[in-house]
Amino acid sequence: MDANNLYPPFTIGVDLGGTNTVYAIVDSVGHILSRNSFPTATPTIEKWADTLCSGITKLIEDNKMAGQIEGIGIGAPCANAVTGCIEAATDLPWPSPIPLANMIEMRLGLNVVISNDANAAAIGEMTYGAAAGLDNFIVLTLGTGVGSGIVCDGHLLSGTKGFAGELGHMTFAFASDRKCSCGRTGCLQTVASAKGIKATAIKFLDSSNEHSLLRSIPQNELNPKKIEDAAKLGDNIARKVFEFTGECLGKAAAEFASITDPEAIILFGGVAKAGELLLNPMRKAFSENALHLYIDRVRMLTSGLDGADAAILGAASLPYLNH
Amino acid sequence: MDANNLYPPFTIGVDLGGTNTVYAIVDSVGHILSRNSFPTATPTIEKWADTLCSGITKLIEDNKMAGQIEGIGIGAPCANAVTGCIEAATDLPWPSPIPLANMIEMRLGLNVVISNDANAAAIGEMTYGAAAGLDNFIVLTLGTGVGSGIVCDGHLLSGTKGFAGELGHMTFAFASDRKCSCGRTGCLQTVASAKGIKATAIKFLDSSNEHSLLRSIPQNELNPKKIEDAAKLGDNIARKVFEFTGECLGKAAAEFASITDPEAIILFGGVAKAGELLLNPMRKAFSENALHLYIDRVRMLTSGLDGADAAILGAASLPYLNH
Repeated sequence: MDANNLYPPFTIGVDLGGTNTVYAIVDSVGHILSRNSFPTATPTIEKWADTLCSGITKLIEDNKMAGQIEGIGIGAPCANAVTGCIEAATDLPWPSPIPLANMIEMRLGLNVVISNDANAAAIGEMTYGAAAGLDNFIVLTLGTGVGSGIVCDGHLLSGTKGFAGELGHMTFAFASDRKCSCGRTGCLQTVASAKGIKATAIKFLDSSNEHSLLRSIPQNELNPKKIEDAAKLGDNIARKVFEFTGECLGKAAAEFASITDPEAIILFGGVAKAGELLLNPMRKAFSENALHLYIDRVRMLTSGLDGADAAILGAASLPYLNH
Repeated sequence: MDANNLYPPFTIGVDLGGTNTVYAIVDSVGHILSRNSFPTATPTIEKWADTLCSGITKLIEDNKMAGQIEGIGIGAPCANAVTGCIEAATDLPWPSPIPLANMIEMRLGLNVVISNDANAAAIGEMTYGAAAGLDNFIVLTLGTGVGSGIVCDGHLLSGTKGFAGELGHMTFAFASDRKCSCGRTGCLQTVASAKGIKATAIKFLDSSNEHSLLRSIPQNELNPKKIEDAAKLGDNIARKVFEFTGECLGKAAAEFASITDPEAIILFGGVAKAGELLLNPMRKAFSENALHLYIDRVRMLTSGLDGADAAILGAASLPYLNH
């Protein structure tokens, strides 16, 4: 990227993923200046922190950015922005809690903000994406699970212990036949996550004899991307899967509107790439179910961040978080 | 009240009710120094504003409070704190919208904050009542309807147009057989308002032959207070009415917890006077239905404001509102 097209200030975004840790220098409008990565599975969290910090130091030196970095944002599973710790993360190779913000601050002498992926996505959308200029919106992250980040009156909701915005675990009648990994029944996550969409497809395939491209895909290989591809080829069952999922999202959005009176509800993550396949039935169900105060006022959108870089951009935006 | 026991600063609270308008000088801990009232039904809103402002001027003079009033708060139906206007109020004698804050500021030269009753209740509880010292809580006002005020991270949620916190119109499976005045089905309001509780009582009376004190009350005279009185005398059907209502409130609270991670959910208004009759089943249903993150952390309380003065105290707290 041409240095003449970069806009200071600069931050560093770190995406602590289950497989790889990716880090990058990002400018104030979301251009990625330079990036690097390493496998997350190090023997100890100290070793991980050492690897990350020597990598960041080298990245800063290589790009002649010494003294120009405003802060570091880390997006990580179960990361609590209030405590600066990773709490009870089951899909990381180290024991929790981990005082992550402090560990990195001590090593680099830079301000560090950590947050879970959904809140990072919300701040990312507000800083560089579909929520630029909005003070009231909700981001729903549709992936392995369903997370959310709620911004109301310009402020990311945190709550007593940092657990505001668990909208993926609000329960709805449309999912009353689905058991959630949290032990409860009917969570939005059970229909709107990748696993939920797959379960809907299997249910629809099992309950009819209609021809479908999905029948030639082994069940363990079925995923939202393949269902999306089939839907775009006109496959009726695949289209119905997205219609049902979008309708559920619209009914959920109708309830969410009553909470924070948002300007927009933004779908983020792999599943959201289905775009209008989800948004059209979502908008229809929203209009049919929301309180009159909110109808025709709330926009349903998909992420404005480049898919491949969305997680790193979300993390890089965290130093802009207002607490 | 002894002037030696009053704590400055002072504000004026105005409760614009359907029947009477009550106004009072209140100190910073919720002592009412002096009050007055007049019938709300004046021919025009200008006449109402003139009556109120001459009354307030006299109250200030009589109490030697000139120059000591920090601001005026007005609690009114459909009052929007963001615009300062009363919008589409169906139970007031004048046409909406009414630029209420501006009308009173022009007449008195004092800062005026207006808000709907539920938000005034929330700020009242935070300033003088059960939410003193709390940064994260939800107030549910149980009366003719069900309103709510949500405080998250110390901030009263307002939203795009000031319509955040319409939790009385979130819909639930437990009310799927009840039509709401908003035109939708299943709103919390249909079970937890005074009318909703009366409907529950009639349904329970009609569906059994069990003896009940409520059978001797004509249906048009049945109300939550009479059902509460019967419950306290051990009437089984009356007790079941509050058990059902409390259980519904607990299930709703379990969903609300996932939104803002509150420290407390506070019941306010006439129906809330039933106290433990509602709170016990509410706590039980909350524990059985909330996501594990919130169980044993969220307190269910009733208002800490004196019942008769709650509305006026809520209004008087509005000048402390942080926007």
